[in-house]
Amino acid sequence: MSGLIEHTLRGTWTPSGGSAAPLSPRALRWLRQRIGLAETTTPAVPASLLEVPDSALPEAAREELAALLGEQHVLTDATARLGRAGGMSYTDLMRRRSAAELAVPDAVLLPGDPELVQAALEVCVRHDIAVVPFGGGTSVVGGVDALRGSKAAVVSLDLARLDRLVSLDPSSRIAVLQAGMRAVEAESLLAAQGFTLGHFPQSFERATIGGFAATRSAGQASSGYGRFEDMVTGVRLATPAGEWRLGVAPASAAGPDLRQLAVGSEGALGVITEVAVRVRPVPVHSRYEAFVVDGWQGGVDAVRALAQNRVLADVTRLSDVDETEVQFELTGALKVKALQFLLRSKGIRQPCMLVLGWDAGSRAELARRREATLGVLRSTRAVRLGRAVGETWRSHRFSGPRQRDALLDRGVCVETLETATHWTGISELRSAVRNALVRSLRTGGKKPIVMCHISHAYETGASLYFTVLAPRRSQDPLGQWQQAKQAASDAIAGRGTISHHHAVGADHLPWLAEEIGDIGESVLAAAKQAVDPTGILNPGKLIRPAR
Amino acid sequence: MSGLIEHTLRGTWTPSGGSAAPLSPRALRWLRQRIGLAETTTPAVPASLLEVPDSALPEAAREELAALLGEQHVLTDATARLGRAGGMSYTDLMRRRSAAELAVPDAVLLPGDPELVQAALEVCVRHDIAVVPFGGGTSVVGGVDALRGSKAAVVSLDLARLDRLVSLDPSSRIAVLQAGMRAVEAESLLAAQGFTLGHFPQSFERATIGGFAATRSAGQASSGYGRFEDMVTGVRLATPAGEWRLGVAPASAAGPDLRQLAVGSEGALGVITEVAVRVRPVPVHSRYEAFVVDGWQGGVDAVRALAQNRVLADVTRLSDVDETEVQFELTGALKVKALQFLLRSKGIRQPCMLVLGWDAGSRAELARRREATLGVLRSTRAVRLGRAVGETWRSHRFSGPRQRDALLDRGVCVETLETATHWTGISELRSAVRNALVRSLRTGGKKPIVMCHISHAYETGASLYFTVLAPRRSQDPLGQWQQAKQAASDAIAGRGTISHHHAVGADHLPWLAEEIGDIGESVLAAAKQAVDPTGILNPGKLIRPAR
Repeated sequence: MSGLIEHTLRGTWTPSGGSAAPLSPRALRWLRQRIGLAETTTPAVPASLLEVPDSALPEAAREELAALLGEQHVLTDATARLGRAGGMSYTDLMRRRSAAELAVPDAVLLPGDPELVQAALEVCVRHDIAVVPFGGGTSVVGGVDALRGSKAAVVSLDLARLDRLVSLDPSSRIAVLQAGMRAVEAESLLAAQGFTLGHFPQSFERATIGGFAATRSAGQASSGYGRFEDMVTGVRLATPAGEWRLGVAPASAAGPDLRQLAVGSEGALGVITEVAVRVRPVPVHSRYEAFVVDGWQGGVDAVRALAQNRVLADVTRLSDVDETEVQFELTGALKVKALQFLLRSKGIRQPCMLVLGWDAGSRAELARRREATLGVLRSTRAVRLGRAVGETWRSHRFSGPRQRDALLDRGVCVETLETATHWTGISELRSAVRNALVRSLRTGGKKPIVMCHISHAYETGASLYFTVLAPRRSQDPLGQWQQAKQAASDAIAGRGTISHHHAVGADHLPWLAEEIGDIGESVLAAAKQAVDPTGILNPGKLIRPAR
Repeated sequence: MSGLIEHTLRGTWTPSGGSAAPLSPRALRWLRQRIGLAETTTPAVPASLLEVPDSALPEAAREELAALLGEQHVLTDATARLGRAGGMSYTDLMRRRSAAELAVPDAVLLPGDPELVQAALEVCVRHDIAVVPFGGGTSVVGGVDALRGSKAAVVSLDLARLDRLVSLDPSSRIAVLQAGMRAVEAESLLAAQGFTLGHFPQSFERATIGGFAATRSAGQASSGYGRFEDMVTGVRLATPAGEWRLGVAPASAAGPDLRQLAVGSEGALGVITEVAVRVRPVPVHSRYEAFVVDGWQGGVDAVRALAQNRVLADVTRLSDVDETEVQFELTGALKVKALQFLLRSKGIRQPCMLVLGWDAGSRAELARRREATLGVLRSTRAVRLGRAVGETWRSHRFSGPRQRDALLDRGVCVETLETATHWTGISELRSAVRNALVRSLRTGGKKPIVMCHISHAYETGASLYFTVLAPRRSQDPLGQWQQAKQAASDAIAGRGTISHHHAVGADHLPWLAEEIGDIGESVLAAAKQAVDPTGILNPGKLIRPAR
């Protein structure tokens, strides 16, 4: 774990054991031309130079926690605390680079099982200490920022030691996993018994099962495997009011689905300690292919047809013209000019790339499902690019975050944000967010690069995922992005959800009431009051204090 | 509407305009032999002879409500009030027959739009009057019983006049329907524009859109179309705290899914006034077929294989040996002896009927989906009975409730109950519930008929639906069933959900805490406190007063 903490400290994404992805000469050239790049690299400040405030954890509380968890599982040293000082948003990474405005927890707790999480919470209630549950630390919405709220001290409750596969029921296809288990580890343990979760968000290399549940995560193959909340059949939470277990049946009419209140509760209504999830057999055959459709609206219509005919591939990902151009330029797998010529000859002037991927248990199933998808796609005049491009996308599917450090080093403001809405409003929403970002991030003569894709389609609508690359302002670089984020969020509010799969955290809280109403906010506050009457759980995230 | 009220009064199910289904001579003969029958029929007491207490609605409240809604929409006459005195459970029907223990509302309100529902609620808050939302009146769990709770008066808020199709977005495939619209009417209005909900519970002929949402209804084709909560993209509720609207995107990570708190809230957290639902094109081709598998466990394994290979037909319904026997005996479409001989020759000694039905937009789609289903079914050695039996089931799919009056007239205790659990526990749960029912309802030398089927299958588990026919005791006939229901519910608690699609209402409330925990109950009570601080909404249903 020390490897992990060290990397986190450096403000990098790269997982323990993995390696950061450098930018290729081709990419550097292209970025320099499009948005400009710093001529010299500025790496992050070494952790040893960061200034960390003293721990404010009262000694009586520390002693009680140490007696409960063991001295070695109550960490107050600067390294451990810095390692949990926020997540992985651009803002988090920038703060770590400069050591500015970092919210550092006063201690890190490492309980070893759900009962100890429960007991630790009760100690924190008695000493009135704020508790921030911490999984993979991949939040990009301030979800793990060590905010104190009204409390005098705040601890990071790191679930890393809750890393067991509790049980696997192959007949019901349900695995019970402890919340701190990393996705990579879960896949490896399940694969040994022939199963998979099929959940592959871009945070896959670091994120945990509990984090997926707490944030309603969606993965790249969610069109086929479902969003994480669709997989959750049960949850176990530690709360100041006691342990809470839910989930006795695949579906129920026994009142509101409280699992759907626990899932997405972001540590504010309890600490998820175990998750029961539906698993599927490891696919034996997979196939990834790329297609090109003409223009964004043509692509939207194609994906909508696939979704509404219920023949979506497991991975279904449509890039807009800008993202397609970047992918063509940067993958290196394509002769861009030749390709554009070819596409133009087929009537495609505004190429939008569509990646489709199927997982199946047999060749016959793969063929049947692929044929059903392509049968509908045929009517859209999509042009097939083939498997090589599809497989290239697949092999780079987790590399985005790994490249962020190199971009930050070269003075680039790089960040993503996402939303979802119904089909009728999807293109208006894309334009509104895009325009807001471009307007906010335009600097001098250079326009930022704003790319967008649909990665999750439903019968009634789809998600939109934006990636932004802009030259970083030297003056107030955090303010530069915060203004852009504000403009994008204002454009989203009323037109779509403030988050399709990144969650609310601290960053989206100002826009939540627009989406769920004052009544929705007061219902959440009331639920919190019931399970966490003194408000120690993740203050400042998801739920505003009752007014 | 007077037709409806009149029928309701007679304690019958038969919808306005429809006709009660008599029992065939064959069915009578068979029932007489199996459980005995009263020699003479005892029809329900005419409504005119039922004694209805005077309305306790304070005159000041009545005047204010009449000024708001119009005199003709605030009914205090006995006929109108009796028409909303409970739902359609065996207990409800028996109470109406004898006019015993009927909870009659003090008035019936008939607001004409969502704003008037909101305004009427506010009047009721001011006068501290309990409000029971009333849709189709098909609750079988006491969900519309006119309970007063701690209030001096109770009104039935009948949503019958909220019967409009508010909007239809064919591109996003979302229809916004007012809550009081009946399912039959919704299907008719949507069909005129080429769409269907595909939601066909046995209550279809009477139930409303708001009722479906309030109770997390599941229909006979939910394996294909999804449960009602899966279709809901948005809701509008009137609450004492104000209007509440939810649903801006097909999926979201903006905190817990509060739609799933509104859906299933059974009138206790608000009055649902509008529902946005996903629609699909009216299927052009349908095919229903029956199969027989050997033994319950063989059937369970077959349905599990279909679900886990994700090739379920839209209708997938497995009957146990007892239900299969009754279907063979009563449909009249089969030569039973010849069939049993044939099945035995194919190695089937314990026939369990499996009905599969597919809806599709084209012959090709139908063929593709049917082939996928049958491809998996082949490995289970199921024997095909053919389309005639499948179509017979389909044509009788709503007739069960219509036959209840005839059965009640002949002294039969007839009722259904249901649950769901994960695959591993499904057969133990079936045995436990079955044994509890048989033990409780055994009378003299006669065993009751207890039939069971799976009508909803999921990757991780399935529902179990029980139908009971027993000779009614002349002494305390309500107590007879209440004891049996208690025994069945005790058998379910801890093993499965207390309701897969009938909801909680008043009848399941004693078992809810076992399922959602004391914390779950306190979260629901807290949510109620936030939206309904004086507790006027549907007291005694779903949520116990905070302790």
